[in-house]
Amino acid sequence: MAQVYERVALIGLGLIASSMFWSIKRGGLAGEVTGYARTEATRETARRIGLCDRVCDTAIEAVEGADLVVLCVPVGAMGAVAEEIAPHLKPGATVTDVGSVKAAVIEAVLPHIPEGVHFVPAHPLAGTEHSGPTSGFAELFDNRWCLLVPVEGTDEGATAALRALWEGMGANVDEMDPAHHDLVLAVTSHTPHLIAYTMVGVADDLRRVTDSEVIKYSAAGFRDFTRIAASDPTMWRDVFLTNKDATLEILGRFTEELFALQRAIRTGDGDLLHDYFTRTRAIRRGIIDAGQDTDAPDFGRGGSRK
Amino acid sequence: MAQVYERVALIGLGLIASSMFWSIKRGGLAGEVTGYARTEATRETARRIGLCDRVCDTAIEAVEGADLVVLCVPVGAMGAVAEEIAPHLKPGATVTDVGSVKAAVIEAVLPHIPEGVHFVPAHPLAGTEHSGPTSGFAELFDNRWCLLVPVEGTDEGATAALRALWEGMGANVDEMDPAHHDLVLAVTSHTPHLIAYTMVGVADDLRRVTDSEVIKYSAAGFRDFTRIAASDPTMWRDVFLTNKDATLEILGRFTEELFALQRAIRTGDGDLLHDYFTRTRAIRRGIIDAGQDTDAPDFGRGGSRK
Repeated sequence: MAQVYERVALIGLGLIASSMFWSIKRGGLAGEVTGYARTEATRETARRIGLCDRVCDTAIEAVEGADLVVLCVPVGAMGAVAEEIAPHLKPGATVTDVGSVKAAVIEAVLPHIPEGVHFVPAHPLAGTEHSGPTSGFAELFDNRWCLLVPVEGTDEGATAALRALWEGMGANVDEMDPAHHDLVLAVTSHTPHLIAYTMVGVADDLRRVTDSEVIKYSAAGFRDFTRIAASDPTMWRDVFLTNKDATLEILGRFTEELFALQRAIRTGDGDLLHDYFTRTRAIRRGIIDAGQDTDAPDFGRGGSRK
Repeated sequence: MAQVYERVALIGLGLIASSMFWSIKRGGLAGEVTGYARTEATRETARRIGLCDRVCDTAIEAVEGADLVVLCVPVGAMGAVAEEIAPHLKPGATVTDVGSVKAAVIEAVLPHIPEGVHFVPAHPLAGTEHSGPTSGFAELFDNRWCLLVPVEGTDEGATAALRALWEGMGANVDEMDPAHHDLVLAVTSHTPHLIAYTMVGVADDLRRVTDSEVIKYSAAGFRDFTRIAASDPTMWRDVFLTNKDATLEILGRFTEELFALQRAIRTGDGDLLHDYFTRTRAIRRGIIDAGQDTDAPDFGRGGSRK
């Protein structure tokens, strides 16, 4: 694969940034990758495991001379970082991010972007329940989607280069406007996460069902919720605070629907339940056909005759 | 491993029964395994793939001479099946089941059990989103829990033999009383399933987010819900109708908790959200330590450097 950028700077060295580094190296997509993390401990870990060609002690040092600057910090921290690095950005450089929310990030970052620098917001739809600099791996983005959310007037060449980088890292790329992005993600990611957090919290609270029972007998459904609910707390706090409107809208729809099913249970309406559960099965089939999950039973966790 | 029963009869040939057959064969746990399914199509499939040593055209034929009869039909059908086979059970035989709900099954089945026949309800906590006679595999129960829920006055020898069978199939065995079983499962399985069904239903309904977008961008959380929501509709309808009280109780706790988080989002209470999300993370760690899931990122779906 061809080199896309001479120098890339990763600001924040968590799961996404560390996966980007290994993926960029795998594809030979950049000449040099610099990195910066807020804490000394993370920078030391990064140096120890060879994460980034050069780990810098300041964000300013990391972005100097960079052709692409990737903001990989929690959504709530994007604005402050953008303000700090803005005066040190190379003319003609591109700034992008990997935040799970787009309208709020654009609002926070765009005002700081200097004349002559391009801003192309992005969101790779990939992740695991792990976080931190040691959690990344080169294959994280393979066959996953990365959504580019260019703002009005964005330079087409800058967008095309960023697309080439993400494709080089194995992702499929789509473009979307910010508001629609935030609504789609509220459905496919943000609300499911909040619900999983809630269900795990309920189990934790319940006095008559001891923790050890919940944990021992988690195989049938609950453990999938716990994986989702083990995701990074800071990242998710920021997601909900910054995608408030769309999340609250989908939550409203969710509780309305949940109450309808709850009523069917209470009144013994088996037909309603059966019809509902039959309809949702078809969606699963669509996801497997779209290549976004495996059809192996139980996620391929165990052995299988099939 | 030693043979536990001379002859085992499986009534109903879905995921659990077919996995039991392959697992019993793997362990040499029974001399002969007979099987019966309600539909001609399922019986034909079973004969074609070698599921069961002998596939019978009636439940009565299948249970004749059997030392263990396993009811593997949906919870709502258990009573009728028990009534039908009762007069044909061998004296001294044991009847068991694999239903996800225990109080309702005991209420439906126990009155039909003849004098001199033992009834030991059971519930293996294992499954996948697939169903039907071709979905079983020998390893399904390995390192999973099987809960035995013996009724008052149950013969200890009968319980011990059933325990030996489940341990021979790779499961860990615990005993529990029916009401506590139904509450624990409402937390760890039934309510999570209802919630997953609801979330997938909401996504399906939403007009502004097309189906194809939901499916394409499902990687970040939602696809785990769709797996759960792809489970067998008949089985789950019966679970909710027969474990009504415990499910409604846990649902009540869930919505109470969800509203508290929803309020924190609306009012911008980031500390509450962060604390909550931090607490739920610890539960995940407990489940991995208990050996009920893998620590591989993303369920080990993708490749990994870790």
